[in-house]
Amino acid sequence: MIKTNRIRMKAKPAGNLSRDDFSVEAITIPAPASGEVLIAARYFSLDPYLTGFMRGWQGPDPRWAEGIVVGRFVAQVIESQDQRFAPGDWVQGEGGWQDTEVISADKLQKLEPIPGVPFSVYLSVLGSSGLTAWAGVNGVLKVEAGDTFTVSSAAGMVGGIAGQIAKKIGARVVGIAGGAEKCAHVVNTLGFDACVDHHSQDLQGDLATAAGAPITAHYENVGAKTLDPVLANIADRGRIALCGLIAHYQDMNPIALKEFRRLLISGVTLRGFRLPDFAADFEQASAELKAMVISGDITLQETLSHGLESAAGAFLNMLEGKGTGKHLLVLEEK
Amino acid sequence: MIKTNRIRMKAKPAGNLSRDDFSVEAITIPAPASGEVLIAARYFSLDPYLTGFMRGWQGPDPRWAEGIVVGRFVAQVIESQDQRFAPGDWVQGEGGWQDTEVISADKLQKLEPIPGVPFSVYLSVLGSSGLTAWAGVNGVLKVEAGDTFTVSSAAGMVGGIAGQIAKKIGARVVGIAGGAEKCAHVVNTLGFDACVDHHSQDLQGDLATAAGAPITAHYENVGAKTLDPVLANIADRGRIALCGLIAHYQDMNPIALKEFRRLLISGVTLRGFRLPDFAADFEQASAELKAMVISGDITLQETLSHGLESAAGAFLNMLEGKGTGKHLLVLEEK
Repeated sequence: MIKTNRIRMKAKPAGNLSRDDFSVEAITIPAPASGEVLIAARYFSLDPYLTGFMRGWQGPDPRWAEGIVVGRFVAQVIESQDQRFAPGDWVQGEGGWQDTEVISADKLQKLEPIPGVPFSVYLSVLGSSGLTAWAGVNGVLKVEAGDTFTVSSAAGMVGGIAGQIAKKIGARVVGIAGGAEKCAHVVNTLGFDACVDHHSQDLQGDLATAAGAPITAHYENVGAKTLDPVLANIADRGRIALCGLIAHYQDMNPIALKEFRRLLISGVTLRGFRLPDFAADFEQASAELKAMVISGDITLQETLSHGLESAAGAFLNMLEGKGTGKHLLVLEEK
Repeated sequence: MIKTNRIRMKAKPAGNLSRDDFSVEAITIPAPASGEVLIAARYFSLDPYLTGFMRGWQGPDPRWAEGIVVGRFVAQVIESQDQRFAPGDWVQGEGGWQDTEVISADKLQKLEPIPGVPFSVYLSVLGSSGLTAWAGVNGVLKVEAGDTFTVSSAAGMVGGIAGQIAKKIGARVVGIAGGAEKCAHVVNTLGFDACVDHHSQDLQGDLATAAGAPITAHYENVGAKTLDPVLANIADRGRIALCGLIAHYQDMNPIALKEFRRLLISGVTLRGFRLPDFAADFEQASAELKAMVISGDITLQETLSHGLESAAGAFLNMLEGKGTGKHLLVLEEK
């Protein structure tokens, strides 16, 4: 038997999530049997979609019913009872938020090292965030050189990568983000041409100035607050990729758009999309994203928190929009 | 000089249009000069888009500034001073709502007779209404056999043709229309598979029953009231052609959609389109529409009013949704 610590929820949250809903509990797990691998987690991905499972104690993994948090990880192999893996190998998969875990080898993918790049990249640019950004820019919007491209939640992981991909293609890239600090990050670190603050009293006017031309391609992550000023500045036959509606997930109120008529007047195409719709493109997308990471065309953005004890706080900070880029929980080698 | 009667507005309407805003005045016009043709109008097209010009006394033709109503017509040539036209020829063009008019031959198009079909078809199925229906069904939605197709304002000209085109392609076709009488017309005369009344307290449920399967392709002419229940019944990767927002033209309030999130959740593509976007397809579309008229796959729907004296009332009836299909003012040969 092996001792480990894991995150467990104390009870179903009554309202919004709080730090007190989470605890760290000490447990023992059996040693790996044949076909199994003992892993030590190095990074857990802190993702908004986990919120629903945390609040409902329901998710694709049956452990959710016991209040156990299950997410995407990057880990190292400690002990292997499967010939495909050896101690020290880096792997990715899905498991409980705990220091060590025994897991079926079939459910692990081995990761190749990329010189100069941390393995956490497999949870961000080379994970679903990067693929989602790629699919929106290339699969939905088909961005080309000369496009005037805008993206909301530009300091977030998906928005930040989407803008960098569009910039590499040759578009003029304008971000929408919350606050001067995030906007500075979007322009100075991520290399966008411009960024506007969504707290502005005149977001529509700011966007017109920053874009400098009607918007031909827009990547939406937030909701009506950013979509309306974009529609007010949209080009004839403009394209919109609808990737997320973060501002509207906590309620079921109608979504009201002052500028909905522009979809008709300007002949706009708006497409909602989900990552699995682009499964056929994953191989090409991964190769292109990896090349951009290596060349430096994509800057890694990470907000790191350390140790299981930090998990609850780190997750809530991510939900509240603190920090930029990919939020990760880091577990160091002991 | 030739005597004729024409429609003229008495003054700019103070509020909504009323019959009293229009008058019939007797005028004289000069005989045709070289390159000109004297025509006798046979049909005037009664179209919603004229409303704005009538209220604003502003339109593409300078005569609007004097309160003269200018619209699409089908006419016969009375006298010709141009070798391209001879008395008795049928033509189409744009002109004042008046019995006879002298017009430049360059602005007229000669019409071919279609056996058994009135020349008014050139203002409906073979005019912009038919082309718009065709563009939405084939250009935007790319309807195929097996699609579950819905269309709002199904008893209207564009909606009625769109449904008939989709039916011919092999889709299951469900209309949305206002009232039992219109729904009966849509099913019995136009040959739709089913029709639901938009006055229903449970339009969403009625639509689910009538469609019998998730909606894969929807043609929208009206607005949130019909779009919301369609979105509630939309298929994964459903397509929506946004052709009109009739219910939202008289105000600039935000358009609120309870089911907007479905665009994302179901990976829906919504495309607003304008007829000129499909100019390259007009030749093919016209040929296909003509073939469907001749074969009887498209049933002509006309609401006819007779004589210039009826023009104002006929136009207002059209605006109020009375009658079905194409609204036309008919001027008989004297």
